[in-house]
Amino acid sequence: MELQQLGKQAKGASAFLAQANTESKNRALTAMGKALLDQTPYILEENAKDMDQAKANGTKASLLDRLLLTEKRLQEMADGLFQLAALPDPIGEVDKMWLGAEGIKIGKIRVPLGVVGIIYEARPNVTADVAGICLKTGNAVLLRGSQSALQSNKAVVSVLQNALEREHFPKAAVSLLTDCSRETASKMMKLNEYLDILIPRGGAGLIRSVVENATVPVLETGVGNCHVFVDESADFSMAEQIILNAKCQRPGVCNAIESLLVHQNIASEFLPRIGKSLTENGVEIRGDETTRSYIQNALPATEEDYLAEYNDLILAVKVVASFEEAVSHINRYGSGHSEAIITESYQNANRFTALVDAAAVYVNASTRFTDGFQFGFGAEMGISTQKLHARGPLGLSEMTTTKYIIFGEGQTRK
Amino acid sequence: MELQQLGKQAKGASAFLAQANTESKNRALTAMGKALLDQTPYILEENAKDMDQAKANGTKASLLDRLLLTEKRLQEMADGLFQLAALPDPIGEVDKMWLGAEGIKIGKIRVPLGVVGIIYEARPNVTADVAGICLKTGNAVLLRGSQSALQSNKAVVSVLQNALEREHFPKAAVSLLTDCSRETASKMMKLNEYLDILIPRGGAGLIRSVVENATVPVLETGVGNCHVFVDESADFSMAEQIILNAKCQRPGVCNAIESLLVHQNIASEFLPRIGKSLTENGVEIRGDETTRSYIQNALPATEEDYLAEYNDLILAVKVVASFEEAVSHINRYGSGHSEAIITESYQNANRFTALVDAAAVYVNASTRFTDGFQFGFGAEMGISTQKLHARGPLGLSEMTTTKYIIFGEGQTRK
Repeated sequence: MELQQLGKQAKGASAFLAQANTESKNRALTAMGKALLDQTPYILEENAKDMDQAKANGTKASLLDRLLLTEKRLQEMADGLFQLAALPDPIGEVDKMWLGAEGIKIGKIRVPLGVVGIIYEARPNVTADVAGICLKTGNAVLLRGSQSALQSNKAVVSVLQNALEREHFPKAAVSLLTDCSRETASKMMKLNEYLDILIPRGGAGLIRSVVENATVPVLETGVGNCHVFVDESADFSMAEQIILNAKCQRPGVCNAIESLLVHQNIASEFLPRIGKSLTENGVEIRGDETTRSYIQNALPATEEDYLAEYNDLILAVKVVASFEEAVSHINRYGSGHSEAIITESYQNANRFTALVDAAAVYVNASTRFTDGFQFGFGAEMGISTQKLHARGPLGLSEMTTTKYIIFGEGQTRK
Repeated sequence: MELQQLGKQAKGASAFLAQANTESKNRALTAMGKALLDQTPYILEENAKDMDQAKANGTKASLLDRLLLTEKRLQEMADGLFQLAALPDPIGEVDKMWLGAEGIKIGKIRVPLGVVGIIYEARPNVTADVAGICLKTGNAVLLRGSQSALQSNKAVVSVLQNALEREHFPKAAVSLLTDCSRETASKMMKLNEYLDILIPRGGAGLIRSVVENATVPVLETGVGNCHVFVDESADFSMAEQIILNAKCQRPGVCNAIESLLVHQNIASEFLPRIGKSLTENGVEIRGDETTRSYIQNALPATEEDYLAEYNDLILAVKVVASFEEAVSHINRYGSGHSEAIITESYQNANRFTALVDAAAVYVNASTRFTDGFQFGFGAEMGISTQKLHARGPLGLSEMTTTKYIIFGEGQTRK
């Protein structure tokens, strides 16, 4: 009931949003940001209810931290909305215009997708980010967050909706499904009548469930089993800094590395050195036999380790016989997210970028850069690991589609 | 068994194809076209077996015509391949390159999708078209045609494979599933391990089945419930020519119109005129009450008529009270394919292109132009009616994806 009604209202709102001009959308985004700041005490109060419940349920500390809102985090959420207001609007751009058969004039114009559905876990700050990106791109959004963040999400969405209403936008531009049951989530995955696209944001289990069950077109995001390959010509100091950055700076995110491949010709020299630094940084190492002969404290790695997205301070390490073995290991075990080579070889740099099949392929830089903000997009909906529609960080233009508009003077087809 | 093996071989071939240069792909396409001409007698012989079987099964004439191959049709298939060889290669294009955080150099390069799966019905000429488009764009293709065209498809594919082999391409670049059972088709829809994208080409039933069952990302094509709206300011003669072209030139295709909307202020003058011409052209008219008061031979239209894709010489007609009613009817009943307004009003032309939600929106031209060749793309895989990835005619660049390649000098994320 609630789902059908919200879907229908969102569809209605999307027709309004598709026609909203850039200035009014920017005013609405600014009003939404200011409202988050004005209503900070109310939102924190509602967030405290979720936190109390989560603590009572024995939720672990890292998840509690994801759930927590603070004055600083609300300021960041508001700043995100202010920044969106300042970004260029992709809607209405005509990429090109040309003459087709019989002289019909054909233009390809950028338009909103329509209604975007999001199924996401925990973090309530995602609620404001996603609402802002969808509003800027003229899309209505139907949010389905997790039960554990329900009071926080309800508070954020009601504050945003009130701001939208004051700016003469329909409240249904941003709506939240309060029924967090699995049954309703399953129905949302098949709500083709109202949803144009569905984006799952969360763990591997959530994403798999959406891919398997959805009939609405899905934009898959997030799972990252990323590698660094240290080629035989690598600068060891550069390799060490990049590996530590890619593994340790924020181990819980999708662009952190899970596996390290080292060329056999440098294994005896490089592995003891990197083993020492990783251990000093609290990283548990799981390696193949050769790795363990050079890093004494490394545990044995299994097939599962090379497939795992640990999201933790654990690193699988493997010594490879050649450049080719590194590439084929990455293409076999990687999730198509972000992959890096450290090399001083011009040829291997070129071949690596050509042969590795992933959204982002790096030479001599950390995989942690795969991010809409680091790429300069100014906003991000997640990182797509599929090849259809968009690959890599999803910025504003990735949340749009195109339409052909054709102007004739009575032409018919011969 | 066959499916798994073909999928695996196609994946292997896709790695080769992704690295093949433009010249060698063009030589292979030319060889494929020549082989179709050289082997015409063999292909026609095999096609005759399918035709005999289809006649024995009592297949209706229009389907027999779709199944039939002739010397002329093989010449057209070969010409299609020669034309593909002459088109620009989208692979390897770097759309743009810029500096990201810490000065990393980011490029967005166009690459193949990988392995394309196609599930299609009847027409064996599609086999060569699809094989050629995929080869040009560096994709391997796994074809699943219908049982009724199996001997023809086998002949065409074996001829193409032999030509590929002579040009030192892997045969598995183009492969055909000979097991045409529904069970195997269902398994193909879930072959995420090997397929990067699945395109259904055929009737509404096939497309629905693929959308509902596939876990491989789907590119939906084809269903066309298209409209012409004759606005009150329309030039009647232009309207008449466009309607006749859009309905009668080839009623069985997806860009033919199924419904006609007429503004009430001109209904009394325009409807008798268009009713007469449509009837003279053998079109059965199904109309609402007002329509039937002006066109005596019109049958009553039901809700189903406004939803139907007849693919036949039948037209649903409705008188609308306003421009707005026309737009909302189209957005409600249309399939998002091709929609046209006939108008002399600058304002309504602009509003129609802005408000109608479809892949192609026309002012004063026939919907029949929605076609890769008419648009100037030089090749076509079908017409996408979904908003994700590509919308409208699928040309070569729509059969590609992108990858970010990032060049650094040791940068790590702050």
